[in-house]
Amino acid sequence: MRDNIPENAAVRLSLYLRHLRKMKKDKVISSEELAEFIRTSGARVRKDLSFFGQFGTTGKGYVVGELEDTISKILGLDQVWTVALVGAGKLGMALLEYSGFKESGFHIRIAFDVDQSKIGEKLVGVPVYHPYQMPKEIRQQEINMGLIAVPAEAAQESADLLIISGIRAILNFASATLIVPSYVKLMQVDLTSQLEIMAYFLSHTREEKILTKRPKWR
Amino acid sequence: MRDNIPENAAVRLSLYLRHLRKMKKDKVISSEELAEFIRTSGARVRKDLSFFGQFGTTGKGYVVGELEDTISKILGLDQVWTVALVGAGKLGMALLEYSGFKESGFHIRIAFDVDQSKIGEKLVGVPVYHPYQMPKEIRQQEINMGLIAVPAEAAQESADLLIISGIRAILNFASATLIVPSYVKLMQVDLTSQLEIMAYFLSHTREEKILTKRPKWR
Repeated sequence: MRDNIPENAAVRLSLYLRHLRKMKKDKVISSEELAEFIRTSGARVRKDLSFFGQFGTTGKGYVVGELEDTISKILGLDQVWTVALVGAGKLGMALLEYSGFKESGFHIRIAFDVDQSKIGEKLVGVPVYHPYQMPKEIRQQEINMGLIAVPAEAAQESADLLIISGIRAILNFASATLIVPSYVKLMQVDLTSQLEIMAYFLSHTREEKILTKRPKWR
Repeated sequence: MRDNIPENAAVRLSLYLRHLRKMKKDKVISSEELAEFIRTSGARVRKDLSFFGQFGTTGKGYVVGELEDTISKILGLDQVWTVALVGAGKLGMALLEYSGFKESGFHIRIAFDVDQSKIGEKLVGVPVYHPYQMPKEIRQQEINMGLIAVPAEAAQESADLLIISGIRAILNFASATLIVPSYVKLMQVDLTSQLEIMAYFLSHTREEKILTKRPKWR
């Protein structure tokens, strides 16, 4: 059963965890209270957790500390995950400096960049290598995940190198649609696309605009 | 019809546009070719575009430049969108320096931060104000959208201030679940959550782990 959990459930588990972490460990919380934090239903919470074993339905709730441990284990957060950063430009630097990753158990251990002035240096304590050193360095340092923060035109090559190096989970920040094998988990953070969706929302709820020009078939 | 387009269609339109922008303006492209870029079907492309009027089905394709214009108009990208940044820390600075926003018509015009050393200064050419100046400055400068890049505990207050100031579209980078009125479009970029989902994927495809401890009902 556990291998078939929908990704949406994993997203919710991650959100439950975020709230549980802020609470006292010995407090008892009901599924309804937990549901309220992320505006879902108690039934949904119980269903999400039931994927991982039988929980009673007549009690008053979960002990916060125990539930936190369980969800952490389900999500695989009871270990340190090692991360490689590809692209140490402005966005890459912000990712290197972002403390939230480390606090959650994700350690950026190595970075790759084509900028000769960065190669061989350490940025925020992280050594920088040339991308062609990826296969060797990633295997040697047993890296689990890759972050891609390079310009769009270099994103596919970066992904290919990560995958050749044995990486099976990639978070891509470049505005490019990447092709990866089915055994690789690819997630995408496209900031411009998010703004465009907001623009769409604002355009279509504010006032009705008339399209004056439409593409023609030839 | 146009007001009921699913958000997923808006996401795809944004992706089509990204590929069209790289192509010669007078080229003719079929829906199948366009579909291939984002690994969907030609039928899906035609359906996405059909929300916005009748397109023939027997022709050979769309003129790239014209389709680009049309999709830009549909997404509301035929205008400049003005953006306010709340939080000028490391992530905020990376957002200020990210050139991709401006290239796509999103101009960060103003920033807010509680850091006294930043207030009254300009960062990357953008003036910084105290958050309590939001209602006045946002209205005066006719800002359309807000980006929240503050610590989690300050995120809800930032959202409240943006909304009081008249903002109806917010992109939140803080690890916090925000409550906003239904007329506000809230989008979330939670980087840690994305990594946690990848951790989940790696944990559950690599090997079967046994949960040794489960939360108990009390």
